[in-house]
Amino acid sequence: MFSPPLDKAAQETGTVFAPRFDANGLLTCVTVDAETREVLMVAFVNEEALSATLETGVMHYWSRSRGELWKKGETSGQIQTLVELRTDCDQDALVALVTVGGDGGACHVGYRSCFYRTVERDAESGGITLRFRDEPLHGG
Amino acid sequence: MFSPPLDKAAQETGTVFAPRFDANGLLTCVTVDAETREVLMVAFVNEEALSATLETGVMHYWSRSRGELWKKGETSGQIQTLVELRTDCDQDALVALVTVGGDGGACHVGYRSCFYRTVERDAESGGITLRFRDEPLHGG
Repeated sequence: MFSPPLDKAAQETGTVFAPRFDANGLLTCVTVDAETREVLMVAFVNEEALSATLETGVMHYWSRSRGELWKKGETSGQIQTLVELRTDCDQDALVALVTVGGDGGACHVGYRSCFYRTVERDAESGGITLRFRDEPLHGG
Repeated sequence: MFSPPLDKAAQETGTVFAPRFDANGLLTCVTVDAETREVLMVAFVNEEALSATLETGVMHYWSRSRGELWKKGETSGQIQTLVELRTDCDQDALVALVTVGGDGGACHVGYRSCFYRTVERDAESGGITLRFRDEPLHGG
């Protein structure tokens, strides 16, 4: 379906899509809200999920925990429609710009984005804590 | 230095930072320009790189290819100053919002972002090609 990885120059400066799946057959995918540019989630695609995404225009991932193809939003309604897909220099990561259906969320915990907490370090004590920075979608 | 992973509820809805490093001791880090919100790169941190990042306020990664701590920009001048660090629901990925020093680039190929190409599928033929969408920083 896809080209195998090419030499460094072709991989980085060519126009052949040659995704470098890792030892588990996965690529990292960073999914971003196409309007707000907020990072919504980080997930993985295998060849099957990437093919399904490109053919249907809606995001499919590979669920590592369930070991199966995962059409995001199939049960929650939080379907992600692909607006633009980008790959990085060595083609082992993707950025997917999407619009989100349903309630607009992407995170199973109830937030728009999975990245709802900041990591904060106290300069004096060196102690590190998380701080909630986003509001949940449906109150909380 | 960091808490080991906790139970699911504490991991997802608590305030204890308990990064879930993978089998290789790594977390995925998505680095984003704090001003433009553009995704600049996807890289990895281990415990040492994450500690150095939090203590110094500049991004340190773990270079998988060189097998060493990598202070981004040490040779290129493209130092990344940390503005905000976020973690995701299960704490196995980070988003780092940064400002970039030097020429403002993050990619060794010469672009501001590593994601300078889009993946495009021809609806009729099903053929997939890459298209350059960004301009290199110093002409090309």
